[in-house]
Amino acid sequence: MDTDFGLMRDAGFSLIRVGESVWSTWEPRDGEFELEWLAPVLDAAHAHDIAVVLGTPTYAVPSWLMVKHPEIAAESRTGVRVPWGARQETDTSHPVFRRYAERIIRAVVARYAGHPAVVGFQVDNEPGNVLPHNEHVFAGFKAWLLTRYKDVGAINDAWNLTHWAHRLDDIDELWRPDGNHVPQYDLAWRRYQAELTTDYIGWQTALVKEYASPDQAVFTCIDVARPAVDDRALGQVIDIVAANQYHATQDELGPGADGGHEFPPSGSWAPFFVADRTAAIRPGERFMVTETNATSVGFPWFNHPAYDGQWRQVAWAMIARGARAIEYWHWHTMHGSWESYWGGILPHSFRPGRVYEQVAQLGREIRTAGGAVEGIVPDAGVALVYSMPTRWAFEFHPPLQDPAADPRKQGGPDRAAYERIVYRWYGGLSRAGHQIRLLHADDLGAGLPPVVVAPALYLATDEQRETLREYAAGGGHLVLGTRSLYADEIGRPRLDRQPAGLADAAGAWYDEFSNLLAPIPVTGELTGRATGLIEGLTADGADVVAGYDHPHFGRWAAVTTREYGAGRVTYVGTIPDLELATALGGWLAPANPWPVGGAVTAHGATNGAGERLWFVHNFGFEPHTVVAPMPVADVLTGAPVDRLELGPWDVRIVRETTP
Amino acid sequence: MDTDFGLMRDAGFSLIRVGESVWSTWEPRDGEFELEWLAPVLDAAHAHDIAVVLGTPTYAVPSWLMVKHPEIAAESRTGVRVPWGARQETDTSHPVFRRYAERIIRAVVARYAGHPAVVGFQVDNEPGNVLPHNEHVFAGFKAWLLTRYKDVGAINDAWNLTHWAHRLDDIDELWRPDGNHVPQYDLAWRRYQAELTTDYIGWQTALVKEYASPDQAVFTCIDVARPAVDDRALGQVIDIVAANQYHATQDELGPGADGGHEFPPSGSWAPFFVADRTAAIRPGERFMVTETNATSVGFPWFNHPAYDGQWRQVAWAMIARGARAIEYWHWHTMHGSWESYWGGILPHSFRPGRVYEQVAQLGREIRTAGGAVEGIVPDAGVALVYSMPTRWAFEFHPPLQDPAADPRKQGGPDRAAYERIVYRWYGGLSRAGHQIRLLHADDLGAGLPPVVVAPALYLATDEQRETLREYAAGGGHLVLGTRSLYADEIGRPRLDRQPAGLADAAGAWYDEFSNLLAPIPVTGELTGRATGLIEGLTADGADVVAGYDHPHFGRWAAVTTREYGAGRVTYVGTIPDLELATALGGWLAPANPWPVGGAVTAHGATNGAGERLWFVHNFGFEPHTVVAPMPVADVLTGAPVDRLELGPWDVRIVRETTP
Amino acid sequence: MDTDFGLMRDAGFSLIRVGESVWSTWEPRDGEFELEWLAPVLDAAHAHDIAVVLGTPTYAVPSWLMVKHPEIAAESRTGVRVPWGARQETDTSHPVFRRYAERIIRAVVARYAGHPAVVGFQVDNEPGNVLPHNEHVFAGFKAWLLTRYKDVGAINDAWNLTHWAHRLDDIDELWRPDGNHVPQYDLAWRRYQAELTTDYIGWQTALVKEYASPDQAVFTCIDVARPAVDDRALGQVIDIVAANQYHATQDELGPGADGGHEFPPSGSWAPFFVADRTAAIRPGERFMVTETNATSVGFPWFNHPAYDGQWRQVAWAMIARGARAIEYWHWHTMHGSWESYWGGILPHSFRPGRVYEQVAQLGREIRTAGGAVEGIVPDAGVALVYSMPTRWAFEFHPPLQDPAADPRKQGGPDRAAYERIVYRWYGGLSRAGHQIRLLHADDLGAGLPPVVVAPALYLATDEQRETLREYAAGGGHLVLGTRSLYADEIGRPRLDRQPAGLADAAGAWYDEFSNLLAPIPVTGELTGRATGLIEGLTADGADVVAGYDHPHFGRWAAVTTREYGAGRVTYVGTIPDLELATALGGWLAPANPWPVGGAVTAHGATNGAGERLWFVHNFGFEPHTVVAPMPVADVLTGAPVDRLELGPWDVRIVRETTP
Repeated sequence: MDTDFGLMRDAGFSLIRVGESVWSTWEPRDGEFELEWLAPVLDAAHAHDIAVVLGTPTYAVPSWLMVKHPEIAAESRTGVRVPWGARQETDTSHPVFRRYAERIIRAVVARYAGHPAVVGFQVDNEPGNVLPHNEHVFAGFKAWLLTRYKDVGAINDAWNLTHWAHRLDDIDELWRPDGNHVPQYDLAWRRYQAELTTDYIGWQTALVKEYASPDQAVFTCIDVARPAVDDRALGQVIDIVAANQYHATQDELGPGADGGHEFPPSGSWAPFFVADRTAAIRPGERFMVTETNATSVGFPWFNHPAYDGQWRQVAWAMIARGARAIEYWHWHTMHGSWESYWGGILPHSFRPGRVYEQVAQLGREIRTAGGAVEGIVPDAGVALVYSMPTRWAFEFHPPLQDPAADPRKQGGPDRAAYERIVYRWYGGLSRAGHQIRLLHADDLGAGLPPVVVAPALYLATDEQRETLREYAAGGGHLVLGTRSLYADEIGRPRLDRQPAGLADAAGAWYDEFSNLLAPIPVTGELTGRATGLIEGLTADGADVVAGYDHPHFGRWAAVTTREYGAGRVTYVGTIPDLELATALGGWLAPANPWPVGGAVTAHGATNGAGERLWFVHNFGFEPHTVVAPMPVADVLTGAPVDRLELGPWDVRIVRETTP
Repeated sequence: MDTDFGLMRDAGFSLIRVGESVWSTWEPRDGEFELEWLAPVLDAAHAHDIAVVLGTPTYAVPSWLMVKHPEIAAESRTGVRVPWGARQETDTSHPVFRRYAERIIRAVVARYAGHPAVVGFQVDNEPGNVLPHNEHVFAGFKAWLLTRYKDVGAINDAWNLTHWAHRLDDIDELWRPDGNHVPQYDLAWRRYQAELTTDYIGWQTALVKEYASPDQAVFTCIDVARPAVDDRALGQVIDIVAANQYHATQDELGPGADGGHEFPPSGSWAPFFVADRTAAIRPGERFMVTETNATSVGFPWFNHPAYDGQWRQVAWAMIARGARAIEYWHWHTMHGSWESYWGGILPHSFRPGRVYEQVAQLGREIRTAGGAVEGIVPDAGVALVYSMPTRWAFEFHPPLQDPAADPRKQGGPDRAAYERIVYRWYGGLSRAGHQIRLLHADDLGAGLPPVVVAPALYLATDEQRETLREYAAGGGHLVLGTRSLYADEIGRPRLDRQPAGLADAAGAWYDEFSNLLAPIPVTGELTGRATGLIEGLTADGADVVAGYDHPHFGRWAAVTTREYGAGRVTYVGTIPDLELATALGGWLAPANPWPVGGAVTAHGATNGAGERLWFVHNFGFEPHTVVAPMPVADVLTGAPVDRLELGPWDVRIVRETTP
Repeated sequence: MDTDFGLMRDAGFSLIRVGESVWSTWEPRDGEFELEWLAPVLDAAHAHDIAVVLGTPTYAVPSWLMVKHPEIAAESRTGVRVPWGARQETDTSHPVFRRYAERIIRAVVARYAGHPAVVGFQVDNEPGNVLPHNEHVFAGFKAWLLTRYKDVGAINDAWNLTHWAHRLDDIDELWRPDGNHVPQYDLAWRRYQAELTTDYIGWQTALVKEYASPDQAVFTCIDVARPAVDDRALGQVIDIVAANQYHATQDELGPGADGGHEFPPSGSWAPFFVADRTAAIRPGERFMVTETNATSVGFPWFNHPAYDGQWRQVAWAMIARGARAIEYWHWHTMHGSWESYWGGILPHSFRPGRVYEQVAQLGREIRTAGGAVEGIVPDAGVALVYSMPTRWAFEFHPPLQDPAADPRKQGGPDRAAYERIVYRWYGGLSRAGHQIRLLHADDLGAGLPPVVVAPALYLATDEQRETLREYAAGGGHLVLGTRSLYADEIGRPRLDRQPAGLADAAGAWYDEFSNLLAPIPVTGELTGRATGLIEGLTADGADVVAGYDHPHFGRWAAVTTREYGAGRVTYVGTIPDLELATALGGWLAPANPWPVGGAVTAHGATNGAGERLWFVHNFGFEPHTVVAPMPVADVLTGAPVDRLELGPWDVRIVRETTP
């Protein structure tokens, strides 16, 4: 223990996380608690000046409880229990689970809340991993529906249940989600499931707060990709925002990486994206990264330890975007368990090596930078609107086909279409030098930046649409991407010409769209390729910025723009490839005073002292010399610099100075 | 309603289909009927001079019935019910279902049979979507077997059940279909299931006819791809033939499209194929197309609205092949339901646009053509033999591997092999200019055209084989494709050298065959490539027309031909690629007096007045000028034309005139 | 029968196998036996001087037994029975099955053991096809665990069950294998299942031996790929080694074939590999090939009859590696059953043709060679270590990703990684001219050849590691491939730097490794490409033989070598492609006195008379002339030969002579 804590301290660690997922160690038999084993760990942490976040153990349920109460297993389909043998097999809304969970939480937290090392509590871990279909969950769903619709007649009308004889005469005639084919039903089911998860975390948080002091934060670590999570809603019931955010490494962290958003996200914009995605949970607040890449991430067959320098690059990127703590998962690679190749900072041999040295260098830099990188408020010239309901709707009924399928045949759906489109836009804007504020559609309102992009805001409420209209009318530049505004908040296609309700402001409309067998060239003021689909966009007052080179699709506009009130509405009727998305980014607005492009990026921020900072990266092996566009000094050395020398996979942090 | 019917009438609509799939609207609660809502619709249709086909609603069962009688759900595997939430979840042979279905059918049909707008009835919709494994269905299967085999000993012998100890001592020892590995069992199971579907539709038809007047037709709309359908048999129990036939669009409707037969079928021959496939249900009769492409077809991620002109092209193609009505699915795109992106003639905005205009132009043309295109009998120089039992046998034990699998390894089966082979032959013959009559093997007999092609008639009865022999002996040109005649009618490989029973007539035989890792060049009088497999075809009296360029396979013939009696037998020992199939088409017989080829096709027919018509298409963007090979006049303008100017994706209809 | 036996005798057959898998013929009703049908078959065989192996019929259970005792069906997952309808659906450790199996075995064997044609018995067939999850099997597993660990506390510690709260307080809290995620659990489960299969075959063997005479051998035919088989252990409970070994054909039997090990294995080394794999079951003993390719192998969609000559090539290859009998599966292709396209020596028409002629030629050659090819002991310059526990461990947690997955994303596991790596090494060594002795890790000991290669010996006991160390210290050349020695015998990663416990002897170590998105060039003394993964191998006393051409990976060694004691340890830190594996083979040691390479191979052996034999193959269409490097005479003609003329797909057998 001394060796471990000594190594941590030497590397600059100031915070660790303990105690989660070991319920069977805390309570080896029903009602018999063994709580003392952690005390020496906390004592040693405290002695090394390392603070501790204590986890509740509910992520993984002990065998004895599953044996005694098999009914608490989540049913992945009605009547089909998730088999025991991993973790998160549980229906966390089940009263029996809640009773046992409450007892162990109270026991552990009561025992250690007063320990001086404990600065906070993490309740559960990455909640929302499964959509339980258990009987009481479905019963709750029916009741939930009746709180939202006055009666089944209203459901019949809202969901258009005449078709295929789905009309209900009584809520107990509602079919199970297992065979459901109605998109509005599915969306309601997803909303309900997310609410269950929020309720669960809210319940644990409140429970722990009975013991926590006011300066001990209570939170969970969010995985925004979990199926039963609405991370924005979840963020409202915890003290501070914390998320687990992994990223691609090696060449996949380069500016030409096109691996997309799937785990782990690729491209030089990946660490910025995952940070901005976390920041969006509670806009304007800083956040913790509770897990990120130590050595390898993922299953035993997927090992890609970062290149030298990439740990620094990623950490400074996250800090630049508002991270106030970065934790690695995990300290050392484990010698058993499913995660035995999810690589820690120490390898299986426990010997500090390349990874430890890389992390220790980062630790030294952060200590050196000190207050200069505290209280950071990231720059944001563009807001990118994110819509969780659209993600859910597109998981059920996406507008794109499985990329692995033959595009000439019906094939299967691309359930990742929404994330794919959003990530493409983020990548293009980022490559164009923009700094992006991700914003949940429900957070649209005042204080928006000069440009707001809604990449595929398929589901939008009337209020959201009007907010966007007013934003443009008031001087903003609103950019709508394909499928935006098509449906109302429960997923019904609207009856207006598209983009529904803003076709007038856009000065363009469409009534049909086509998927593409292959990308099609886009020509005009912007170039690149149209991918996935093309809408039959007809300018009706707008200027045409770009079109298609095609005997049929050529009649339609790819990009239109129109002044609207004091602002502007631009519509993009296809999914841009990375080239076109980057070109769009450059066309929208000047993005960055630095000579960015290719491997070089620059991200600005203001620190707590009101100073202007820039984080300048080189995402490649080839060194670059970057001429600073204003007087700056190196944050780590304090020395003024005119030309930043960036080595392979390097990052420099500079502060603007007065000439 | 007035707007809708006005639009329909203006576009030339004369027929609509209503009332199907809305059982829960007709009968919202068990035994409580609400029948009046349709009356104003029928009145309005009548007022607009639009005839109506009234559907029975049994395709989709109401929730209350599924809740009350869950046992009527079809079991997709023994004991595994199809979950409720789409449609066609039902075991339609279940007595409980039949009792409720009869009651609602009688109620609806009795109420409206006398309405003057109603010209016919559609019972159910695309039946045969599932193979129910329910207890009583399996019991029926055992009884069915005993009507076909005198006892289990006969089954043991016929199915070769000694192997793997499958011999039965009692029919109740028969294993369930779930784990069955015996091909003869599977084929019997498929035949039984198809009979259940035919019985079901026959039962509904008889029921409705108790109310229908003699001039009201009763039928169902057939989807020939349904697993539990023998469309030819089903066609015997309804008044008129009607099928739902979709097709590829955009570039996939071109002559070079090689997307194959899978939904939606590709190539310029696709609309002809689907029409000819429908015409084969009851040879010599005209038919209805009860559904075809309006805007997009398929799931929400598959949208390919046709290019301008393609609606006309497809409709005139279908008319040329005997369609007497064409209905689009559906009038407007729905705003809910699984099919919310199965695009209608009107888009989600209800505003008539490009699609409506295209359909309306077609409507005007049909009105103009009038009687000139009534009573059409299509030309047919080649008969292509279709074998439903072979399709079923190849779905279980195909001779080809899944095209997506590594051909060097065992991989999985290509369950679509039969359709793939047939469609390839159809495409090649069509590209060579032939007009093709699809013919079920059970309809082989007198009146065959000069050439009969059996692409892969794996299962053939002794009678069918002798009919083919007599056809050749009597002067016909019989072309046998790979695997033809290999097995008897229950799927047992025959004991003769192959092609079993006709090797003498063919003057060629084989005893082994090989799948191919990659296509192999075919050389000789015909060129192209061998795909999928090669049979070890040895000429023994026949002439070799083409062979293989290969150090091993080169010893065998690819194509042999031999005079037989007054006719000829040709054998093709491989699956031709499109090039070779086209070359074969050209070699077989002169096909077409018109200068067809590439994008240009010409299809001839005789109308009810005995006039000769030609439908000349240009399946491409590039315009073509086609010189008529005989004096003709334009059917729409009446003007004589020497040179037909065909624009992009165009079609002209001309009538032969005396010079 | 006379025709069949006449054909067999004419083709040189001396042995057939009968009676397996026909339980329902032997016992059509419970307790009613029909045993006499086989007598005339055995009599006829005897009359034709053909010996018979009599099979027990337990591979396939009759319907009546499954109907009466459905509980004997194996459960593929807990509670999910393998459906009846193929064979091997049974839980062979079930007492009810054992009771019925014993009765039929006793009846059949007692009846025929004394027949003069019967020279041996095959019990069951390819056992171990399923991992039964039945209740009593799982109960047995828990008991089995407690015989290996003193209590659940020891299991908690050994399996690291603290993680994810998996700690057990009682063995009855053990979760089912269905959802298990703990690799050590899975490995124990696999070992237990393999023991059940060994126990089953041992039980049948003992039963049959009650009736067999001492000169009648009792054995089973092993399929080494079955999931529940440890073929080495299974080999201990039977009289002689016998295995079913299929191989690729046509071009896939060539030296450039890279189809890998999956069924059927590809490359000119395939027949040698499958023979050597069989020989490894009981080192030093000759073996039977109880099944190999007759015409086609595999499912109906996979037919690749060999080219002329390939039957001879494969059979002589197997004989060269110690086969004392070769049986073809099967005599004629069947006319029903799942295997109706698993092609026999006679085709469906029963007419002897090309395949029969090829086999008959082989029969003539073997008769001619006579004693010259008896008692063969194959040469072996290199031992290749095979580890069944590693295979099991890698099936659960492989170090490579599914080759079909996007390498940039986590994707799924390559469950065949172990076989893929071993087969790659075997291919490279073989292409370099080596003759290879496959050796189970448990057979490591004295008498090893000059080179021992452990391609990926992930799991190794301390004893095995020390044996390898002593081998090198004593003068051997030990070659360790990637991942070797990483984990202990229950699959825990070791705490030492890797290769654990031999890093000192290797003079090289690593602590991290990376999967590869694409192959990377290897440069230095050896060239080729690194595939799959690269370990961060650091020379620490060793010489670097080859490295990587890469800006990051270039810092590490690809191949290191170091003198150790009287011998040498070489470490290869990646998975070599075929080129690099071949280069490694050439670098290790001079392999072969013959001018082998490309299509030409030469394999040496010593026959029972102490003579030196060489089997020289040409695996291609192009003829080759091979100059013998020593005086030799043709075994079939007796004539001395200087230059061997090898036609397409040819083989010559020569004997060394004194000049």
